[in-house]
Amino acid sequence: MTDSSRSQTAAASEYFSSNRESFLEQLFALLAQRSVSTTGEGIPECAELVRTLLEKAGLRASTIATDGAPMVIGEYERPGNRFTLLLYGHYDVQPADEPEWQSDPFAPTVRDGRIYARGASDNKGQFYAHIAAIASLLAADAHIPVNVTVLLEGEEETGSPNIDSFLQSQRERLAADLVLIADGPGHPSGRPVAVFGARGLVYLEVSLRNAETDQHSGTYGGVTPNPAVALSRLISNLIGTDRTVNAPGFYDRVRAPSRSEVELARAIPFSAAGFRRTIGVRALEPSISDNLEYWRRIMFEPNLNVSGIASGYTRTGMKSVIPSKAVLKLDARLVPDQDPTEIAELLASEIRRLEPEATVNYLARMTPYRIEPSDHATTAVLASLARAWQSEPLVYPSLGGSLPAAGFLTALEAKPIVLSYGHHDQNNHGPNENLRLDHFELGVHSTLEIIAALAELDRNAQN
Amino acid sequence: MTDSSRSQTAAASEYFSSNRESFLEQLFALLAQRSVSTTGEGIPECAELVRTLLEKAGLRASTIATDGAPMVIGEYERPGNRFTLLLYGHYDVQPADEPEWQSDPFAPTVRDGRIYARGASDNKGQFYAHIAAIASLLAADAHIPVNVTVLLEGEEETGSPNIDSFLQSQRERLAADLVLIADGPGHPSGRPVAVFGARGLVYLEVSLRNAETDQHSGTYGGVTPNPAVALSRLISNLIGTDRTVNAPGFYDRVRAPSRSEVELARAIPFSAAGFRRTIGVRALEPSISDNLEYWRRIMFEPNLNVSGIASGYTRTGMKSVIPSKAVLKLDARLVPDQDPTEIAELLASEIRRLEPEATVNYLARMTPYRIEPSDHATTAVLASLARAWQSEPLVYPSLGGSLPAAGFLTALEAKPIVLSYGHHDQNNHGPNENLRLDHFELGVHSTLEIIAALAELDRNAQN
Repeated sequence: MTDSSRSQTAAASEYFSSNRESFLEQLFALLAQRSVSTTGEGIPECAELVRTLLEKAGLRASTIATDGAPMVIGEYERPGNRFTLLLYGHYDVQPADEPEWQSDPFAPTVRDGRIYARGASDNKGQFYAHIAAIASLLAADAHIPVNVTVLLEGEEETGSPNIDSFLQSQRERLAADLVLIADGPGHPSGRPVAVFGARGLVYLEVSLRNAETDQHSGTYGGVTPNPAVALSRLISNLIGTDRTVNAPGFYDRVRAPSRSEVELARAIPFSAAGFRRTIGVRALEPSISDNLEYWRRIMFEPNLNVSGIASGYTRTGMKSVIPSKAVLKLDARLVPDQDPTEIAELLASEIRRLEPEATVNYLARMTPYRIEPSDHATTAVLASLARAWQSEPLVYPSLGGSLPAAGFLTALEAKPIVLSYGHHDQNNHGPNENLRLDHFELGVHSTLEIIAALAELDRNAQN
Repeated sequence: MTDSSRSQTAAASEYFSSNRESFLEQLFALLAQRSVSTTGEGIPECAELVRTLLEKAGLRASTIATDGAPMVIGEYERPGNRFTLLLYGHYDVQPADEPEWQSDPFAPTVRDGRIYARGASDNKGQFYAHIAAIASLLAADAHIPVNVTVLLEGEEETGSPNIDSFLQSQRERLAADLVLIADGPGHPSGRPVAVFGARGLVYLEVSLRNAETDQHSGTYGGVTPNPAVALSRLISNLIGTDRTVNAPGFYDRVRAPSRSEVELARAIPFSAAGFRRTIGVRALEPSISDNLEYWRRIMFEPNLNVSGIASGYTRTGMKSVIPSKAVLKLDARLVPDQDPTEIAELLASEIRRLEPEATVNYLARMTPYRIEPSDHATTAVLASLARAWQSEPLVYPSLGGSLPAAGFLTALEAKPIVLSYGHHDQNNHGPNENLRLDHFELGVHSTLEIIAALAELDRNAQN
């Protein structure tokens, strides 16, 4: 690395450290702005807030309407830069209705070195590390040695229904050499994480109504069907005791992991005891004998999950009714080369076969992807992470979760790498979601190191 | 029937008709008073209101504390009366949280000749017909020709946990020759209904917690167990596709109906099409070929029902989580000679065998009973109903629902008969519960006829 890029990184780091409090203030304002995509609450307001943050950072910032939530774009080009880095994130968050929150999920609170708020780690806190790094570079040295596009969407938590068509429609404007996404949990070891794939998603809502209103379970028990029983039986039939998904064709396109993907997974440490303790789960699925088996299920196998079921009377005490209806939320996590549309259809078809009166709605579809981490840019990113964290990165062949990154791969032909600036116990999607302050700072420094390394690559390529 | 009892009945009828509006006002005040036993809301206030209604009617009225809701008692004795009639009812109601209510469930509203309110038919409106008859007798003629005890409890909808011990402790005070209970729905034909049994009840709450909080279904889908899936599988295992309850011993003590019970059931008309239309149920359980099969399932067979299930995210839109816990409400309707305590234990034992981490709570137990309608008092009651309704009563060997009446049978050695002053579409336990005004009036006149007939029996026995 040249002296000039080193000194620029040092100056930006210095600027960030001196202005840490004001950066945190901006982040807190972002976390305080509700932006729950599943209900739509606060989405337009948050898009505008994010746009002003990009503008303050020194980027050319705009919002672009879609059929759903607006996209927010920040852009920076400079003559002489040839490498373009696209930084993707999402400003929407999951609902925060869990009773276990110890502080208001939309009033960011620091306790024991962590910021507690909905979106702290998923994904406002993580993408804001990118923005803080860019702002620091521009404030300290007035330029960035690579072109940068920041793309922030507002529907990731509802399956990014508009990202693929948006990427297609903006192919030239968004053209990039590398896509970075800072999202997802870190590893208990504290080592940095880089991810080269994600599972896909199909989210279905199944509802079954047998009567106009709930019926007295004494007066009619035995003669009218019970939709809660019917959907319970549906679940039992769809999901085997060994987790097998019983829908014809479901596994047909599952791609086996390559030998190198298996070796990368095997190299990621895992402690079942530590997992149970920190995540608060009483037990793992039986028969998880070693770390490879754990990662294999999360990275290389599809899974069908019940996200929710509701029917009848479920509050305190007793009420004796035959419920009039039942609702079931199902999410399937997919692996390459399963096709979300095909899987959605074959699941719906099996559901209708088992329960002909059921109504099936598709709420989301996301494509799974896995790429092999092998080129110069990838190597530079991994080396930068090692430098920032003073620790060798763990390379994940895939996230268990889903990301719209597959769209970048297909529409922009740009390789997406997912980094985690978070930690293993950040509790995405659950109560008391949080981001460690030291991890946020590691995220800023990682971004600075990566930009310096990519600029160096670019210079070497030009020479 | 003697002239004097005829003229007394006529005078009381006349008094009721002249004062119909003020009786309805009292009933409306009673319906407006919340008294939801499952939450406890308004229970003490309602007990006191009921006591004042009994007092106004001319009875010696008191409330008696129990471990739960107070019992309210109204008493009348007169020298020379030998026959004692016990009128039982309950002043508590089911919750009224259904969104389909067309008017406030606690602001009684008359539409199309029906009173719409929670408790209108179950059971405030029906027991108030008894009270209005007594008040009319005392106002018109200053005496009642039989001794009367009115017993109103406030925990029927939560399984009458204190009625049996209360009856035991007050055996002498409550001693009676006949117990009448006006409760439950009527028949679509409009013919009066007399019931000689009820199914029992066991209400269980099953909960299963696998984690402290909901988990991200991508990050952990495949490695942590899902309690919604576990309880769905539990339901599928407990309740067979043919409704068979798969718990060892469940059917051991089921008493087959006698030939005369079967004949009584066969004589009750039933229209599947009318049922679907008026109850708003899309379909009956398949294989209900005729009216006897319909009544057989409701009167002579036990049934295990899911009153409610809740787990994970169930509101609008999507949230992808592995739920941390799941809760299931199960109610079993029992027939003689199943024992609620034994059934509760064998169900819980099977549940724990299937899902060892599940927690099972018992919320209610009620004993099933069936008696044969054969003695003088029974015959007098059926004849009085025929006179008041100008229509032959339908005799039900059993209700599908549950009543604490079995306690009267065992503790007081008094035969309980359940009459319905309601109608088939009164929607007990559901939204828009209602009571037809003409049925309320038929209830008052029935009570007057029954009292006259029992007094006649008493006189004949004395002569």
